[in-house]
Amino acid sequence: MIYLDNSATTKPYAEALDTHRTVSEQFFANPSSLHKLGGKSEALLSRSRELAASLLGVDKKEIVFTSGGTEGNNLAIKGAALAYRRRGRHLITTSVEHASALNAFRQLEKLGFEVTYLPVDHEGRVSFKDFIQAYRDDTILVSIMHVNNEVGTIQPIREIGEFLKTHPTTVFHVDHVQGFAKVPLRLAESSIDLCTISGHKFHGPKGTGILYVRSGALLSPLFSGGGQESQRRSGTENLPGICGMVKALRMTLEREKEGILHLTALQNKLRDGLSQIGGAVIHTPRTGSAPHIVNVSLEGIKSEVLVHALEENDIFVSTKSACSSKDSGASSVLLAMGVPENEAEEAIRISTAFETTPEEIDAFLSALSVHTRQLKRVMG
Amino acid sequence: MIYLDNSATTKPYAEALDTHRTVSEQFFANPSSLHKLGGKSEALLSRSRELAASLLGVDKKEIVFTSGGTEGNNLAIKGAALAYRRRGRHLITTSVEHASALNAFRQLEKLGFEVTYLPVDHEGRVSFKDFIQAYRDDTILVSIMHVNNEVGTIQPIREIGEFLKTHPTTVFHVDHVQGFAKVPLRLAESSIDLCTISGHKFHGPKGTGILYVRSGALLSPLFSGGGQESQRRSGTENLPGICGMVKALRMTLEREKEGILHLTALQNKLRDGLSQIGGAVIHTPRTGSAPHIVNVSLEGIKSEVLVHALEENDIFVSTKSACSSKDSGASSVLLAMGVPENEAEEAIRISTAFETTPEEIDAFLSALSVHTRQLKRVMG
Ligand SMILES: Cc1ncc(COP(=O)(O)O)c(C=O)c1O
Ligand SMILES: Cc1ncc(COP(=O)(O)O)c(C=O)c1O
Repeated sequence: MIYLDNSATTKPYAEALDTHRTVSEQFFANPSSLHKLGGKSEALLSRSRELAASLLGVDKKEIVFTSGGTEGNNLAIKGAALAYRRRGRHLITTSVEHASALNAFRQLEKLGFEVTYLPVDHEGRVSFKDFIQAYRDDTILVSIMHVNNEVGTIQPIREIGEFLKTHPTTVFHVDHVQGFAKVPLRLAESSIDLCTISGHKFHGPKGTGILYVRSGALLSPLFSGGGQESQRRSGTENLPGICGMVKALRMTLEREKEGILHLTALQNKLRDGLSQIGGAVIHTPRTGSAPHIVNVSLEGIKSEVLVHALEENDIFVSTKSACSSKDSGASSVLLAMGVPENEAEEAIRISTAFETTPEEIDAFLSALSVHTRQLKRVMG
Repeated sequence: MIYLDNSATTKPYAEALDTHRTVSEQFFANPSSLHKLGGKSEALLSRSRELAASLLGVDKKEIVFTSGGTEGNNLAIKGAALAYRRRGRHLITTSVEHASALNAFRQLEKLGFEVTYLPVDHEGRVSFKDFIQAYRDDTILVSIMHVNNEVGTIQPIREIGEFLKTHPTTVFHVDHVQGFAKVPLRLAESSIDLCTISGHKFHGPKGTGILYVRSGALLSPLFSGGGQESQRRSGTENLPGICGMVKALRMTLEREKEGILHLTALQNKLRDGLSQIGGAVIHTPRTGSAPHIVNVSLEGIKSEVLVHALEENDIFVSTKSACSSKDSGASSVLLAMGVPENEAEEAIRISTAFETTPEEIDAFLSALSVHTRQLKRVMG
């Protein structure tokens, strides 16, 4: 099997699953229970929080464990908008966010908030100028993804962050789900107040994630209740999931530097190979993009057809964002970039992981070359 | 180890953890991915949903997989209140709900909703008369727990449900987290629209749960995004957690009948034994309560002291609700029942599981008897 759909989800590390199992068996008590069994769970939770914080270079009080990226984005966006609604009602985001951010904004519009969706250029990037033009005195929240999940484009988080440093009445949220361990962000030195990551995107167990919440930033919780996670996310903690995720976090960050170099080499190989396949148009920009994603259209071949052709070789790539892959129609991200509709309907996303090998890329390229030739003959 | 804190959380079944592991390894792909690996995950998700639905006697479209009871309660309460806010602004609940329901209502009050918190009698039960008096034409949501998590009292869900059958403009939510497989509810024949259960309370993996949503009932989602769970709960599915939970659901329901008889026998044994310990006042009503919870005050001994004394014998019981067990002060449920404050501060909760043995209850009773005598001597 050649799995090249790592932006949709990753195969969990065996070590992370081992941790999940051990903790499920040996630390099953509720961390909130007063007895020493509860105390043992509480101590482990606290150690996991400290470890996660030190790996991310932040304070342990700034870590909120969640059930994933969608929860993180919804908690950050709705939580901040509701918490600061008396200060203003204007919010800024982009037109190429993941559905979990975009649809949170749509819900807020129904509650009376006003949202500016920044446009993107042909590389899928928002411009600092457009951002400055949209920014107002009553802008309480800016939410921008770091790396786009469909094309890999990196957004100007640093530039926007610099501006927001001097505008402390605006909360800055970054969806770092695709950027994590691919395009490093230094949270502590940035002016990012809220940052979402998702466990299953870096080989952690499903159903896990972290929302970084800078100390002092307020959130109206999505889950109120027993007051866990310092009142920001109530509910009996998924301790096995948390520990499994922190294990994967550590393993991933230990390999981050060499991993990124490796991904970059794979991407170059992929680009070279694709350039030799007739009719391939790469949408992922050559500079200012993440190393693990290549989005490419193969002229004359619908993306679905190609995905199913490749799976005959046990090779797995995707069409667009996994969660919208069953909606018909072209990717809204590519359309926002100005890609013509027919070309957008021919786009596939290849997304690699630290474990992907050059041999797998070769095998993918030769299968792709065979299929494109055959399919074009059939279709032409 | 004698674990008598099953209302806080349970030890997961090995079989549920095996399922979690297998699914993590063999069905790791995103169910939304178009390729056949995604299709395999999607098919398994769909089979799990069908199985859960048939075990609960409902339709598969009525199952929403969540991360636990706190999410279920928040999604049901806030989701329904926001979805039906144009119809009315009045909500009814009780003064003895779990914090995850109570605090959701507090948040809704801040958004302009009006909430009636029904009082309870000395057994912890709301009266149908009080409910009828509180009910108004603009009541859009009634949310009542089935079994109280601290004292085990069963609420008059059936009576209230009968009334609401003829008042279809009101949504009826039941927090069934403690009642599930202890005090059966037949969802299909009831007029319950929304019903919360939590996986870790019946030996499933942590971080799992189900919200039953009757077809036609609307919810404003807490997690918007990719549209998973028929738009009611977006986010990449925690498939290993879902499958592990459904495994535990099946195992639990297969043993439900004998299990409940067993719990009842244990409770009788416990009551008999406690009645022979001087100064024991049982708060759990003799009739109309769940079989797995006994709440008892030991005169003159603070609950914390007793919890820690018992843990020396490797016996684990709790003070009050796990999530508020670290707040100082007496249980708000016992106070609402009219238990005097000093007596409420002496309450412990013993909660059993199908696996609890009569021998464990004997061992608990003899340890309790020794400790109460010793502690009274020390304190007196
Ligand atoms: C950029 C981005 N944000 C958010 C999410 C949502 O994360 P999750 O799948 O953990 O809910 C995803 C992935 O689906 C993503 O790619
Ligand atoms: C009655 C009741 N409702 C809701 C909850 C919350 O469930 P969870 O711990 O899964 O968030 C609990 C347990 O904590 C409970 O006992």
